[in-house]
Amino acid sequence: MHLLVVGSISLDSVETPLDRVQNVIGGSSSFFASAASYFTDVRIVGVVGNDFPLQELNFLKSRNVDFTGLRIIPGKTFRWGGKYFENMNERETLFTELNVFQEFNPIIPVEYHESEYVFLANIQPDLQLNVLNQVKTPRFVALDTMNYWISGMLPALKKIISRVDLLTLNDQEVAQLSGEKNVLTGARKILKMGPKALIVKRGEFGASLVTPESFFWVPAFPVEKVVDPTGAGDTFAGAFMGYLAKTDDLSEANMRRAIVYGTALASFCVEDFSLNRLRNISKTEINERFLKLLDMIKCDSGEML
Amino acid sequence: MHLLVVGSISLDSVETPLDRVQNVIGGSSSFFASAASYFTDVRIVGVVGNDFPLQELNFLKSRNVDFTGLRIIPGKTFRWGGKYFENMNERETLFTELNVFQEFNPIIPVEYHESEYVFLANIQPDLQLNVLNQVKTPRFVALDTMNYWISGMLPALKKIISRVDLLTLNDQEVAQLSGEKNVLTGARKILKMGPKALIVKRGEFGASLVTPESFFWVPAFPVEKVVDPTGAGDTFAGAFMGYLAKTDDLSEANMRRAIVYGTALASFCVEDFSLNRLRNISKTEINERFLKLLDMIKCDSGEML
Repeated sequence: MHLLVVGSISLDSVETPLDRVQNVIGGSSSFFASAASYFTDVRIVGVVGNDFPLQELNFLKSRNVDFTGLRIIPGKTFRWGGKYFENMNERETLFTELNVFQEFNPIIPVEYHESEYVFLANIQPDLQLNVLNQVKTPRFVALDTMNYWISGMLPALKKIISRVDLLTLNDQEVAQLSGEKNVLTGARKILKMGPKALIVKRGEFGASLVTPESFFWVPAFPVEKVVDPTGAGDTFAGAFMGYLAKTDDLSEANMRRAIVYGTALASFCVEDFSLNRLRNISKTEINERFLKLLDMIKCDSGEML
Repeated sequence: MHLLVVGSISLDSVETPLDRVQNVIGGSSSFFASAASYFTDVRIVGVVGNDFPLQELNFLKSRNVDFTGLRIIPGKTFRWGGKYFENMNERETLFTELNVFQEFNPIIPVEYHESEYVFLANIQPDLQLNVLNQVKTPRFVALDTMNYWISGMLPALKKIISRVDLLTLNDQEVAQLSGEKNVLTGARKILKMGPKALIVKRGEFGASLVTPESFFWVPAFPVEKVVDPTGAGDTFAGAFMGYLAKTDDLSEANMRRAIVYGTALASFCVEDFSLNRLRNISKTEINERFLKLLDMIKCDSGEML
């Protein structure tokens, strides 16, 4: 199945307690496509400036990522700067220069109109809705968003939320959107806004899948040395959607597997800056972490009380 | 199998953002025995003052908890006061009055010398060692401790750690004892001090079992309304040890089941103050949460990449 992603492509500058990089490739679509392309064909819609080092994404072309929907326009690429604190779980945004991204109004190429799987990465809710209206009959649509849109554009956000199958949020965003401190209560409340499922991204504590009837939780894959957490959420989403598109099976059991693959890929992402670790992972390495994660949550009922 | 616990029995005063109680029954042994007694016979060694409302523990006698090792001496029972912050994950100790607990020097009754399973709850490491020396040939010994002993009595603590099979710590204690920020790295370092396994208690994020070869993680059972987290760790330990003693199977697969039962019982504990919710739970209710937890982590490998 074809997987379409609409989101940002950026040049990031990242400071961690141990190291720093400047103007490296980032953005939700970059991370998403890097992970998803291990599983299925990916179509990118986005915009970069003419300062963007496109050749650095050649590795994605060799994994069947289609860049027909990428516009290159005169000007500077979207730039983001962030700094991580000691525990690597919290960060502060140092700067956001939208540049060419400011005028981003995603036009979906005709060849993409029949994409069965769609990921609306974290951009303005109105644009997400605009994208969705251009796709003909998607089989499964997932949406990411952030605190900024929850506080600033709630009506538009609720509109697009009501149209998607799955939403991804972190713990704080669940609380903010639902007004509930308890994550599960909040998640169930959000499901009443429309989506059939919600993924709660919990950083070093893993990820949860919440549906009206069930709750699944897989811990993060234990990485001994986290270099840079930037992009882990989009990498997770990329592998999750990539696996679903590859298998084309939307059962809960399969969504759980997709979450475990998402968790596996996210663990590679944080081992290096930018897309570096995602450039070239073998299927064996990916499946190894997938199976290790399954082993980390394996338990049978045995002799009961 | 017989399960011996040595720890505190106290009168607690607890403040939460919504409510408060004064002089209710608390202490590691109380919570531990309340949970463990659903699974096996429990023997308590401890001390209370003559102000202690012993009749309130009658429910434990009816579940085969043996109080032969409980000394009642003139004076006041150990009292502890604590206050929970908004998120219920962090607390501050308001006061600690050791009272009769100050002179606690646990003598293990002869009838208890052949206890196969032993839990050394969080008391001074020297006393824990003293207890262990009195038990003849225990089959499995688990130890709990806290930041206070890690910073103040490290040599004595390391001595007892080297003698036990399993240690329970929270994330912060793992970091403090190992000097490692990464939990898994820290846990593996601690295993080199002697124990065959380490349980990391992670509050609302559940619990992990770490052995030199493996890593298991079960999330907390989602409780929609947490009333008071006090005693959740000891309740967890009680069900964990109770299940092991009942089944007398120390395989990793069975330790994992024990952790899931521990998690189930801890979720009941936090639903009310003191031992209230632990007084009377049906086996059906316990098994229901056990099975729901198993379902929360259930995932098969399906179609792999």
